[in-house]
Amino acid sequence: MAKLSESEITERLKNVDGWEYHENAIHTTFEFNDFKDAFSVMTRIAFEAEAQQHHPDWSNVYNKLQISLSTHDAGGITEKDFTLAKTIDAIIEGE
Amino acid sequence: MAKLSESEITERLKNVDGWEYHENAIHTTFEFNDFKDAFSVMTRIAFEAEAQQHHPDWSNVYNKLQISLSTHDAGGITEKDFTLAKTIDAIIEGE
Repeated sequence: MAKLSESEITERLKNVDGWEYHENAIHTTFEFNDFKDAFSVMTRIAFEAEAQQHHPDWSNVYNKLQISLSTHDAGGITEKDFTLAKTIDAIIEGE
Repeated sequence: MAKLSESEITERLKNVDGWEYHENAIHTTFEFNDFKDAFSVMTRIAFEAEAQQHHPDWSNVYNKLQISLSTHDAGGITEKDFTLAKTIDAIIEGE
């Protein structure tokens, strides 16, 4: 899968909510009511990530979740990252 | 809950496996076969953390899991952290 150019990334960022591009990855953060809510969403994301065979770099502290997406094999950002970003947005919006 | 002294922390570290103390927290890392294995263990830890009402600061990248424990309210490490560390060790050893 081909690495996207900066202009392709900028264009695709318009189609996702709350994601930022820096340090060769796209990033977002979410804040939930509590740990249970945060981990419940993580679990839903985990299943979708596994189905897509593309996984987030993520960290969680209590009710906060940080997610970074990049395609390690491609050394940058690919369509895979935006596909997963859209999936994550859909999960969050469904909450 | 009282913050532990450095010597108390050093003593308690002898009773847990693979945890290190630095930057005002205790830390460990694990590596699993794949994402599914890593996230399965995270789920088990999540339930125990919620039961203890004490939660990890953690991050995951594919098969790797980093965990840091500290007691934010106490501004350091307390018995709660070592209780959760022992629980995490028991979950990992059961794998």
